[in-house]
This record gives sequence, C-alpha cells and structure tokens, in this order.
Amino acid sequence: MDKVFIKFPVRIALLGCGTVGGGVIRLIEENREYLQSRVGAQLEIVHVLVRDMEKDRVPECRREWITTDPDVALGDDVDVVVEVMGGEEPARSYFERAIERGKCIVTANKLLLAKHGPELVERAIERGVDLAFEASVGGGIPVIRTLREALTSDWVETVHAILNGTNNYILTRMRDAGVSFETALAEAQAKGYAESDPTLDVSGHDAMQKLVVLSMLAFGAKVPLSDVPVEGITEIDQLDFHFADRFGYTIKHLAIGRDEGERLSLRVHPALIPKSSVLANIDGVLNGVFLRGRALGPCLLVGQGAGDMPTAVSVVADIVDVARSKIEGEPGLSTRAIQMKVRPLVPPSETTARYYLRFDVDDAPGVLGRIASILGEQGVSIEQMMQEGRALDAGAPVPVLIITHECLEGRLGLALSAISREQFLRGKPRLLRIEEI
Amino acid sequence: MDKVFIKFPVRIALLGCGTVGGGVIRLIEENREYLQSRVGAQLEIVHVLVRDMEKDRVPECRREWITTDPDVALGDDVDVVVEVMGGEEPARSYFERAIERGKCIVTANKLLLAKHGPELVERAIERGVDLAFEASVGGGIPVIRTLREALTSDWVETVHAILNGTNNYILTRMRDAGVSFETALAEAQAKGYAESDPTLDVSGHDAMQKLVVLSMLAFGAKVPLSDVPVEGITEIDQLDFHFADRFGYTIKHLAIGRDEGERLSLRVHPALIPKSSVLANIDGVLNGVFLRGRALGPCLLVGQGAGDMPTAVSVVADIVDVARSKIEGEPGLSTRAIQMKVRPLVPPSETTARYYLRFDVDDAPGVLGRIASILGEQGVSIEQMMQEGRALDAGAPVPVLIITHECLEGRLGLALSAISREQFLRGKPRLLRIEEI
Repeated sequence: MDKVFIKFPVRIALLGCGTVGGGVIRLIEENREYLQSRVGAQLEIVHVLVRDMEKDRVPECRREWITTDPDVALGDDVDVVVEVMGGEEPARSYFERAIERGKCIVTANKLLLAKHGPELVERAIERGVDLAFEASVGGGIPVIRTLREALTSDWVETVHAILNGTNNYILTRMRDAGVSFETALAEAQAKGYAESDPTLDVSGHDAMQKLVVLSMLAFGAKVPLSDVPVEGITEIDQLDFHFADRFGYTIKHLAIGRDEGERLSLRVHPALIPKSSVLANIDGVLNGVFLRGRALGPCLLVGQGAGDMPTAVSVVADIVDVARSKIEGEPGLSTRAIQMKVRPLVPPSETTARYYLRFDVDDAPGVLGRIASILGEQGVSIEQMMQEGRALDAGAPVPVLIITHECLEGRLGLALSAISREQFLRGKPRLLRIEEI
Repeated sequence: MDKVFIKFPVRIALLGCGTVGGGVIRLIEENREYLQSRVGAQLEIVHVLVRDMEKDRVPECRREWITTDPDVALGDDVDVVVEVMGGEEPARSYFERAIERGKCIVTANKLLLAKHGPELVERAIERGVDLAFEASVGGGIPVIRTLREALTSDWVETVHAILNGTNNYILTRMRDAGVSFETALAEAQAKGYAESDPTLDVSGHDAMQKLVVLSMLAFGAKVPLSDVPVEGITEIDQLDFHFADRFGYTIKHLAIGRDEGERLSLRVHPALIPKSSVLANIDGVLNGVFLRGRALGPCLLVGQGAGDMPTAVSVVADIVDVARSKIEGEPGLSTRAIQMKVRPLVPPSETTARYYLRFDVDDAPGVLGRIASILGEQGVSIEQMMQEGRALDAGAPVPVLIITHECLEGRLGLALSAISREQFLRGKPRLLRIEEI
C-alpha cells in the first residue's frame, strides 16, 4: 500500500509504558500500515510519559519519545492521549488537563471510570472530545464496542457477567480439582493471576467497579460505587460445590444488572447457575458478559479479561476509532451518544430469586422441621431439601441443604436471622442466589 | 435532545420489506432521536422497494415510501441502500447499480457475499462507498464488527463456529431428548426454525457460505465456495451421541478456519468437542463464533443466528456506521480496509486431527484385531477402543468405537477404504473429527 496521506498525522502520547503500554507500542509499530489505512492518516507516537527514564522498554519504544514531564506529554503537539498507567491519581488530573486541552482520550483505567466516569464523560462531551475505554472492562472482550455500537438501536434488559479472572480461576480450580479456596488462591498467585494482596478481587470489588462502568452504557446509569451490594468468594467451600453439583448447578462469581423500568437492580455475588448455562463453561481466567437485549435477545461475549496483549489489542482498536473521529473533524460524536442519568437502585431486600441455603447443624431430631417452619413463617417455601449422611464423628455438624422456591430476599433474611438464633446451628447459614441463565 | 442538525439528512432506501425490513423500519422509528445523535445528522427513510404494493406492512412503514420501481429506490435522492430482500438476483444487480451510483450499502445477504463478496467489496472500494454486512453472518452476533474493528491490530489464527441454528437445534435435541434426526428435524420445522426443504441447512452449505464470508475478514481470503469441504449432520445418530458422551465429548456442527501460514484450512463438518468446551453449551438455535487471535487469545461471541429482530438490530447498527461515514465525507474508508487475496486451501487429506471412528460389525472373533491392524498399516494409532455389549439378536451388528491418536486424514481414509472391503463390516464406517477446543 503506497498511500499518500494528504491529512495531518494523528499524534499520540502514551501515559505509562508498563506491559500494556509496551504492547500498544508494539502493535502500532507492527501494524502501522494497516492501521493508517483504517484511520485514513498517519499515526505518530510522539511522547511516552514514564516515571523512570532508565527502565527497560520494548525495543519498539524510541528513546526520544520518553519523557517524565506530563506537560510535555500533554503538549500542543498531541491529539490523542492513551492512558495506560492505571490508578486514580495522577491519572485523573492528567485526564482533566488532556480534556481541557481538547485531546481525545483512550483509557484502560477501570477504577477511574467507575469512580468518575459520568463526570469525565460529561467533560469530554462539553469539550467535544472522544473518550474511549474498551480495555477498562473485560480486557480483550469487545463488550464496550458492542454496547456502544452493535446495540445502538436496542435496550439491554439484563447483564450477567463474569468480570474477574482471578475469582473465576479460583472457583474453577475448587470445582475441578477439589482444592480449597486457600490452595486455589495460592495457585492463582503462583501463576501471576492474583495479586499478593488479592482483596480487591476476592472481595468482589473489582468486578463491581467493572459493573458500574458497564452500567453507564448498558443502562445509561450513573451509579455511586458504594451503592452496589457486593459479596466476594471467600466463604464458598468444597461442600457448596458438592451440593451445587448434586442439584445440577455450578458456582460462578457474577456481576448482575437488570433494568426494572424506573429502577435498576445491580449486584455482585457468587451464584448457582445451571450446568447447562452458556456461562457454566466460561472457566479459568476467562471473563464473559451475557447480555439480553429487548430486540437482540441473548448475546454472550467471552475472552481474556486481563493480560497485556489482549488489553493492548482493545486499546489500539480504540486509538483507531478516536483517530478516525479526529481526522474526520467530528471528535466527540460517539462520546456524545453516551446518555446517563441517576437511576434508583433496587434494594437487595426487594430482590426475588430462588436460593440455595446451607445450614451446618447438630445431628439431632426435629432440626429439619424447625428450619422448615421458620422459613414457612416468612413465606419462604421449600423446593428441595437434602440432608446427606450422618455426622461421622459424634458431635460433628451435618449439612442441611435447601433450595427455595422464588421468594423475597428480605423475607428470607428475616428467616435466616431467626434460624441463626437457634441452638442447633453451627456457624453462619450460607445463602447463595440461583440465577437461571 | 433538541439538536439542530446543520448537515444534510442521510436518505435511506430499503430493498425488501419482509420481517427483517419491517424490524429495521420499526427500530429506526422507535430510536430515531438517539440514532440521529449518533450519526450527527437526520435519518430519513425515503423509499421501500417491494414486489407487492398491497401487502400488509408494519404500521411504521409509510404508504408514500412504498415503490415497486428499482429505479426509484436507487434514485438520486438516496444515500444509503439497505438490502434485506435476500437471494442472488435481482439483489446482485441492484447492488451493482447502487455502487455505481455512489450509494453506501448495508446488507444481510449471506449468499450474495459468499458468492460475490470479494468482487462487490472491490467495486465498493473503487467507487469509494461503504459496504457493511454485519447481519449476513450470525444474525445478532457482532462478529463482523469485531473482526473489522476490535481485532484491527491482531491476526486471527483459528475460527471454530456454530453458524447454523437449525443444525444446532437438531443436534441439541438429539443429545438432550434422545430423539432421532428425523424427529428433531420435524420439531425444528414445526417451530419455524427449519425450512420445509431443509437441505441447505442440514447439508452444511448454509454454514459454509457464512464461513466463506467470515474468512474474507478473519483471514483476508478470497475463497471459491466450491473449494470448501462440507459435511452435514444427516448421518449422525443416537449411538454417536451415546459414545461421544462416554468419551467425554458432545457433537456440534462446526465451521472451522485455521491460518496455516501461506495456506488456509477451511472445513465444515460435525465434530466431537469436549463437554467442557466453551462451545459445548451453545445450544438450541444459538450460534457461536470462537476466535483465537495471536495477541488477543480466545474470544467467543454468541447470540441468535437468525430471527427478524436480532438481524434488524445488526442492520441498524450498520446503517449508523455507514451514515456516519457518509456525513463525515469519508465513505468507503472502512471498506477500503478489507484486504483480500486468493489463498491456497489445505486439502482435507493433509489435515491432521484425532478421530472418532465407529464400525458396525459382525459380532465375530478376530474383527477388532483386523480393524486395528489395518489402521496400524496406515500408521494410524489407537488411543481408545470400545466395544460395548454383545449383539442382542443373533446376527445383529455391534458397534466398535475407536478414538485415534493424531493422524493424517489421508492415511486414515486409506485405512477406512480397506476396512470397507472387509466382509464383517455392515454399512459405512463413521468418521467424526475431534476438535479439542
């Protein structure tokens, strides 16, 4: 292709040059001609902002690009700012300066978007620049693009998503290898899938941040992070996998959104899903987003949720998009199409579902009847009940398993509080929601 | 949104107004404001080409749009032609006239693209117009968009796809309900999933046409339809499902593409895939496309492969894209990025895989040994062999099941020919490829 571009080049600054940033530079250099043919103009990397000038970079990263000065990286010679540094500060202040100076932004920063997404989008719209963030959720999965473009004439009714690869890896190993949570976590850490401090992942907060970003597009919702109910995976144990399997389910950590008209239901927690579900085989570090559109029907997108190269592929796709808009003299058009408003959330107590309950109890007569009658008092009716075997050691607890019919979570909570006060109960009752997807 | 558009409107003609066309009109009218904000200009439907003026249409279809005259529908007052009539002619000649007259095209026509895609793309590039065809493969699945945009900096290494909902429904029912092929087909017909003449589907040719369209984008390949080896699902029976399950597999009808450097391997056939595969639970009429990108890694896209509204959602997303390009004065840019060349195909005999073999044989001593030694003569080594039970009736055949190690399909074919000449064999040997995805 010997194309002569009559237009000005699109000049790019990278903020950050870690593994994702290095991947972006490499992909741009390797695919330069093709990418330029898609943009209709030359692509030029002009600055790469780093903290340490001396650190080793990918060989494609030219020495003269490197700077430690944000004013250089956000200078007048830059059209598109690609933020791959992560974290809240200084990324946020760089963002604001970049938008102020009329630069389009591509980012992989989930935390920043979850905390300040609506505000950053509004600023970008006011200033007429584009803000693209495919890589912020689900790494290499084209879910942001699908929500922004493919579903442009449709309404998303529900989202069920596996958004954290660490948690999915841990749950997969617990199910398939029969190992404990602690062992699976240690494996994930040894393989580099989990941080040395895994709290953000296993507590469910990482998935929750991503759900908040998805909700901006899927449901046009501005959602304060602290309003989304979150449960992690630390309390799941082998017995839960055993019984879930017996009932025909597997356990996945899900981020769930449901459009309920005026209100929106958002929650993040482990859930039982049928073994035949399309999400049941999304295993290991894979992520998956299962949408239902009013007109489209079901749509599942699966891929690497993290990883340098998958994330870099998404960042480069965004660079091409914003560069095209810039060249075409219409920057900000696709960002303007993001319409958001504050939407009230459904409180968890008003959610209805079927539930998996597990009570570790004294192996004594009358216990099953007592549990059933307390549930019955709150209008919670039982679909299946299972008590497997007797205690092996005298005095050891036996698990009682219950699948409820659909009921209100608030009523079930009252019943569980009452059961928790009974002498026969050992430990906390376990409640897992059942999602028939 | 009280947006005043300073630009000219984008004027749309629909060719065809069946159920998909009606869905497109309905979605545009229902989402007009939002769609216009995405395009940055007004969208105006100006003509709807039909064969019968008097037929009932969706209420949103205005009387004055209707015409039976293609010259009106392709007239000077039209910017974007949306072809939802299907079939080869007259769609193809309308296409050519539309391109000639500088109109952008959105189409759902898989047959036309599979037969004439490269030529139509080249004409569109020459004339500087856009050609968008998301709805031609996988109905509501954003696979074309993902290949064209999300993977813009990556190379697709393999595609494994369930591209025919009728076949997938039939195989799902055979597996889950234990019914015969004929019963499952009759069910599919009763539910409207299968045509009264189901040949195009069950022979595998529908999936093959879609694979050829995908290969244009995934592998940059011009592929003559007749060059792709195709097998349908008519020979699969209950015993195959039974034994596949015993070996840990399920059976899916797959369209497969693999980039082998200079050459490309394309084939369409039923295959055994592990029950734990991400495609194993893509059941019923769902379609799924499982890609592996060099940098991206695995990526699975699942949704409705057909259906009026899912297809219409994809058509409208394409209309927004080409309308934007038109407005921005850059029509043809994204079509120009489709780069294709003729690539030699790998002959099936040179493919290597593991294979599932079934021989219905006389229940007599020495038969297993004879089969094993003929396979051995061709260098085909056996991983597992199973003969289950004895013939119930004297003289009835018994099935012998074999899973081979990886071997060359040509060598296996020679062995099967030799075995077919043996007296103990009843009927044809069954060969199914195993895909470890």
